[in-house]
Amino acid sequence: MPAAAAKTRPRKHLRPASPWEARRRPRHEHALKREAVIHAAARAFRERGYHNTSLDDLAASLRVTKPTLYLYVPNKEAILFECFRAGLAQIQASLDAAERGGGPAADRLFAFIRGYAAAIVGTFGWCMLRAEDQHLGAAMSRKIKLLKAGIDKRMRALIEAGIADGSIRRCDARMTAFALAGALNWMGHWYREDATLKPHEIADRFIDIFNHGLRGRG
Amino acid sequence: MPAAAAKTRPRKHLRPASPWEARRRPRHEHALKREAVIHAAARAFRERGYHNTSLDDLAASLRVTKPTLYLYVPNKEAILFECFRAGLAQIQASLDAAERGGGPAADRLFAFIRGYAAAIVGTFGWCMLRAEDQHLGAAMSRKIKLLKAGIDKRMRALIEAGIADGSIRRCDARMTAFALAGALNWMGHWYREDATLKPHEIADRFIDIFNHGLRGRG
Repeated sequence: MPAAAAKTRPRKHLRPASPWEARRRPRHEHALKREAVIHAAARAFRERGYHNTSLDDLAASLRVTKPTLYLYVPNKEAILFECFRAGLAQIQASLDAAERGGGPAADRLFAFIRGYAAAIVGTFGWCMLRAEDQHLGAAMSRKIKLLKAGIDKRMRALIEAGIADGSIRRCDARMTAFALAGALNWMGHWYREDATLKPHEIADRFIDIFNHGLRGRG
Repeated sequence: MPAAAAKTRPRKHLRPASPWEARRRPRHEHALKREAVIHAAARAFRERGYHNTSLDDLAASLRVTKPTLYLYVPNKEAILFECFRAGLAQIQASLDAAERGGGPAADRLFAFIRGYAAAIVGTFGWCMLRAEDQHLGAAMSRKIKLLKAGIDKRMRALIEAGIADGSIRRCDARMTAFALAGALNWMGHWYREDATLKPHEIADRFIDIFNHGLRGRG
């Protein structure tokens, strides 16, 4: 579930070791182990690609057997979907905060852009961007498309609210949302952990470009 | 070769039928058939994904046997690379024209953006955007990365020329190039043949957004 997966983010100490090797309270164990599977899969998919990662690879990285994995997830496609949902939950949380915030809609849009940039370069960014391209089953593809369309719709609504309150000039809200999402999603391709700029610094430069435009005096 | 592949674009009448079924001048036959393989592969990769497309599928779509395919291409990875190069050749041709053009650098950048948008939604757009993500061999990945970096560098140089001639305001040229490339590349995800806007209309809206910015009066 997205909420459960998103909740694991601060538990960084869990990641290097396998939770199968730790003693924990029994009622949390299943959820923790399932989250560990999702996290390990997200990292493996990003590093080696979805099609190049087998459940055997994943089991080995967690130091468990493949049958053990099946206690937590039914198949590889379901794991990719959970990774996608975990990334989506971060984006949704950032949208929730932006929509609740006060002030001009442009400022709320910019706050959302900062949250989006952080999510895209996070553990689940790759899965969120690439899940749809892995040529999954029709039902799964449809679910992912629908969830993505929901994000797009809310982003567009923020832009339309900005046009309504005057903080954003009249523009094609649909194309603006696509241009913004594209600039941000593309970070998933070029951003590496060793990048000189932090995600919020990149977001601020993008906000400057989109807000003020590139037009010079010439 | 990119030049050969790019040259096939206007020959639309070739695509529905297999060139193996046509009588042509012998000296062109090998090149034409090789181009047909690259085109058919580009369409198959875009529709079904690289990993889900076998050389058997490709041979069947061209109504030939797999051993026949090997007369034109050594393996699937090499085909993907040729598809990538064919798409890249379109982008490069558009950059060549923009660099040769006169007037303010901002206008040359915008001309390039229109050419880029057309290439991204073309036959080879998917392969150009996704080749690197297919977790190919190290040598192939390095070649693709280098070729992409060349495009990025030339795009950045156009932006810097604009800052120098005053047609673009002082900005982070690297981040601007990434934002522009992201907006354009994202078209490859959402654009479908039945889209209400043509690629040049989308490019014009993107140019408007990037040139004038979104800032309202509020």
